[in-house]
Amino acid sequence: MENLLKQLEQLPVAMHQKDFLLTWEKSTDDLKATLIVAEALKHLYENNASTRLFDSGLAVSLFRDNSTRTRFSYVSASNLLGLEVQDLDEKKSQISHGETVRETANMVSFLTQMIGIRDDMYLGYGNSYMREVGEALDDGYKEGVLHQRPGIVNLQCDIDHPTQSMSDLLHLKKVFGSLENLKGKKIAMSWAYSPSYGKPLSVPQGIIGLMTRFGMDVTLAHPEGYQLLPDCVSLAEKQSQESGGSFQTINSMEEAFQNADIVYPKSWAPYHIMERRTDLLKAQDEKGLKELEQEGLANNAQFKNWECDATKMASTKEGKALYMHCLPADITGVSCAEGEVTNEVFEKYRIETYKEASYKPFVIASMMLLNRFANPAEILSQLNQNKRPRVGF
Amino acid sequence: MENLLKQLEQLPVAMHQKDFLLTWEKSTDDLKATLIVAEALKHLYENNASTRLFDSGLAVSLFRDNSTRTRFSYVSASNLLGLEVQDLDEKKSQISHGETVRETANMVSFLTQMIGIRDDMYLGYGNSYMREVGEALDDGYKEGVLHQRPGIVNLQCDIDHPTQSMSDLLHLKKVFGSLENLKGKKIAMSWAYSPSYGKPLSVPQGIIGLMTRFGMDVTLAHPEGYQLLPDCVSLAEKQSQESGGSFQTINSMEEAFQNADIVYPKSWAPYHIMERRTDLLKAQDEKGLKELEQEGLANNAQFKNWECDATKMASTKEGKALYMHCLPADITGVSCAEGEVTNEVFEKYRIETYKEASYKPFVIASMMLLNRFANPAEILSQLNQNKRPRVGF
Amino acid sequence: MENLLKQLEQLPVAMHQKDFLLTWEKSTDDLKATLIVAEALKHLYENNASTRLFDSGLAVSLFRDNSTRTRFSYVSASNLLGLEVQDLDEKKSQISHGETVRETANMVSFLTQMIGIRDDMYLGYGNSYMREVGEALDDGYKEGVLHQRPGIVNLQCDIDHPTQSMSDLLHLKKVFGSLENLKGKKIAMSWAYSPSYGKPLSVPQGIIGLMTRFGMDVTLAHPEGYQLLPDCVSLAEKQSQESGGSFQTINSMEEAFQNADIVYPKSWAPYHIMERRTDLLKAQDEKGLKELEQEGLANNAQFKNWECDATKMASTKEGKALYMHCLPADITGVSCAEGEVTNEVFEKYRIETYKEASYKPFVIASMMLLNRFANPAEILSQLNQNKRPRVGF
Repeated sequence: MENLLKQLEQLPVAMHQKDFLLTWEKSTDDLKATLIVAEALKHLYENNASTRLFDSGLAVSLFRDNSTRTRFSYVSASNLLGLEVQDLDEKKSQISHGETVRETANMVSFLTQMIGIRDDMYLGYGNSYMREVGEALDDGYKEGVLHQRPGIVNLQCDIDHPTQSMSDLLHLKKVFGSLENLKGKKIAMSWAYSPSYGKPLSVPQGIIGLMTRFGMDVTLAHPEGYQLLPDCVSLAEKQSQESGGSFQTINSMEEAFQNADIVYPKSWAPYHIMERRTDLLKAQDEKGLKELEQEGLANNAQFKNWECDATKMASTKEGKALYMHCLPADITGVSCAEGEVTNEVFEKYRIETYKEASYKPFVIASMMLLNRFANPAEILSQLNQNKRPRVGF
Repeated sequence: MENLLKQLEQLPVAMHQKDFLLTWEKSTDDLKATLIVAEALKHLYENNASTRLFDSGLAVSLFRDNSTRTRFSYVSASNLLGLEVQDLDEKKSQISHGETVRETANMVSFLTQMIGIRDDMYLGYGNSYMREVGEALDDGYKEGVLHQRPGIVNLQCDIDHPTQSMSDLLHLKKVFGSLENLKGKKIAMSWAYSPSYGKPLSVPQGIIGLMTRFGMDVTLAHPEGYQLLPDCVSLAEKQSQESGGSFQTINSMEEAFQNADIVYPKSWAPYHIMERRTDLLKAQDEKGLKELEQEGLANNAQFKNWECDATKMASTKEGKALYMHCLPADITGVSCAEGEVTNEVFEKYRIETYKEASYKPFVIASMMLLNRFANPAEILSQLNQNKRPRVGF
Repeated sequence: MENLLKQLEQLPVAMHQKDFLLTWEKSTDDLKATLIVAEALKHLYENNASTRLFDSGLAVSLFRDNSTRTRFSYVSASNLLGLEVQDLDEKKSQISHGETVRETANMVSFLTQMIGIRDDMYLGYGNSYMREVGEALDDGYKEGVLHQRPGIVNLQCDIDHPTQSMSDLLHLKKVFGSLENLKGKKIAMSWAYSPSYGKPLSVPQGIIGLMTRFGMDVTLAHPEGYQLLPDCVSLAEKQSQESGGSFQTINSMEEAFQNADIVYPKSWAPYHIMERRTDLLKAQDEKGLKELEQEGLANNAQFKNWECDATKMASTKEGKALYMHCLPADITGVSCAEGEVTNEVFEKYRIETYKEASYKPFVIASMMLLNRFANPAEILSQLNQNKRPRVGF
């Protein structure tokens, strides 16, 4: 703990009152601090120390897509700090753009500390919706409507999934011993076959957008036609150069796995399909959506050999690359007939993927703490000294 | 704070263990106390003092109509005092009248401190439903089933909307400096055009039922045929005489706005339409409901000139009356083609309407505190002295 | 309180970190301890003492069937101890068996202390589902995924309804003065007519499975064809012999009521109907389900005289047996035309049934406390000494 606090004190962190919307808007020091604070909170948790920093206050959640994992992580993180989650349910309260967003953002925020938003269905809209909410909050705070300006955490949008990628990064830090140790490590972010279409792009974009910051050799692999957002790919290239790593895009899962230290095989929809889907969803064109689904599934079906299996795993570094997944995975013979990964491979790494996920509540709590408090090291130090028990006496 | 506590001590308050169902059932001292306690809680909040008076306990919410604003205000108020909200969802648990109400009221109340109810759809039923719940709780408490008799807060019924009107009153107190300053001020509660029908009567009824208590000159304006409940109108007349103010009903928005200090232009459905609607809803007569909607919309359409615009605003006192609205407003060209208010006027007062709404969590918390504690001044004084931090150390 | 703690200290309790799934898996000492801890928590509650043992932590609820009473009891119990309930809504997050259960159980449990599950619709599946969740949690804890292994409380399954039957037992303990006093008392668990079919078997099974542990004379009465699960009936026989009580099954409500000290008239569906219903539900055979419903209702209609009325009550011990029900009862002329009980009888015992229900939050809190803490007497003693106020100062 003291070691973590010492590291934290040395970082020039600039996260106070800044929303966490994209990892690449944060400095590398900010990202390091986010991991350290998450580790410190985990340490306090494991030592039965209370981390309740809020005596009262709400954490609003707005899920525009179904979620179990992120929902529970967000609720757990809020609860850990003393905030009560209140869901802004759009079925119960119609929300759209313009004045409605501006007004609703203020109406739910009078006693609110944090707002977590998932909005990953509509390409070109999710992240900009979060910014629209943020501007409404800026305005309300400036005008004296709000006593505090609630912070926003992106719980997955059309562009990035920072709570996932940061949990993934913390998992890598733990597995490989340090962020420094990740330098030169090869990670294969690979498309994988799934019998479903329309999976968001935010995970692969988030991974290449984050891992290229730490000097890793990042290989993005997908069949032709399964491109990510061009801006995200350019960014990954640029960042890899700055960090002394490398970035390449190839069209072969086999090649990507060759000698990889880490593999992240996961399905997604091509961004141009997602764009068409967004238009059809907005037009409520049911027929068009069904046709697009058929087209998407037919496309996918050409690439059933993009499956993470024992043979491909054997070609990785010493045959024992770390397998990663944001869960749930499409497991061949388990959750579907043919999927992203064989049961044999998944079962071998199942517990590892659970551990990968287990960091998320602490990562989200860290983002909240860093947003709310200007002096995180001091705050954590005081929690560590107080040692009010989390459970019992 | 000390000034507020001194004022509070001098008021003969009789709110302990009394439900807050209609403002006109409360003494003027009770209403003054409600505002003062709300201001004190707001002061403590702004000074980062915890106002957590409950270590555990539930605040049940029962929304028989959709709600974002009031829902969040209720949740915020409960959380501020340390109560956890649990929603009694009628979709998940069928609730009706008679034994079911009596039983359910007790079953959800074993460890419950407060129950907030919104029931504004059915004319003649909402408020009486709250009383039915209250009688069941009286019975359960008297018979030893319940350790405490939970208090009820009316979160909007068919007759009154006290958490709204009391927030509006607190806004006026702040804008005009004191309740005393409201004497002789002219407030125009005016119907306004909206392209929707079936809007509840509780806001205009609540406003004329409350503002006539404080010596204001209250003008109710609506087209012929858009009458409020006759009992509410009679009450407003009677109260205005008692308080030394005045009350009149007229059929012209223009006239109502003349020289007004405050304008509250808002749409509602005539009470006789709401009565027919209630019968049709109970009979589940879909066809009848559609026909009634057509009739209601056609009626409304005759009065599109009942719009709050810059010209009408210019005729108010010095051209700068305070514009009020419970939100969301139907804004011409923003939320609808033609509505209650022009965008120009709304935009000018937008922040003011947000501030008007911002009092609601504190007003509800005040109603809760006054219901639960016999000695509010002492309780607030102790919170003020303890100064346990609300956030951080 | 001291008396309760003394009794508790003398019991060799083995409930720490053990799920509460069936009362007959618990030792009689465990059951006694559960009642004592519930009474102690109730005592602390009534003396305005905080029983908040958790500074943070989640209590997950998973309701696979509608519920008001048990839902509120679970929320109240969790809140009483300082845990925040988060509902795992299967509509929001698809859950099934196999890897999905294993994974979801871990994903919702990173910061979770307790999981409450209601799964009573599918005969042969509910209880085994809870065990599947439990195994997943064992695995996650053992593998280091989870920092704590959350405890599971059965909130009603296809076999037992332990939170109900234990609340019923606590009610009997209070009414008759002690568990010892229950020896030799005659309880009639009787089927009763209801104009609905498909009511779960868990209440009658839970009652005969629990009351036969305490030396009572348990009579199970139902029309021919309305058998409970054979295993549950055999168990009741065996247990009654061990405890020095008796158990018999008869086909007459009148005979069952003769000289009874306690009557529990309640409708249920025959287990073979429930088995067919389970198959049809799994096959989503709507037509088959409708036909089965007609068959079930027609069967029920032959036994409308199985109604708890004043005449039958008059034949009980001194004409004043205690009437029990888990609520809601089907009351003739109130909730249905012809039902389980006449309004006259129900009204006489209405308050008693509410009190019977009022123990449930404390029973559930007791199950949680005994699951989480190895030293319940010490914990309760400390709460009693601290006397941090639950409400106010």
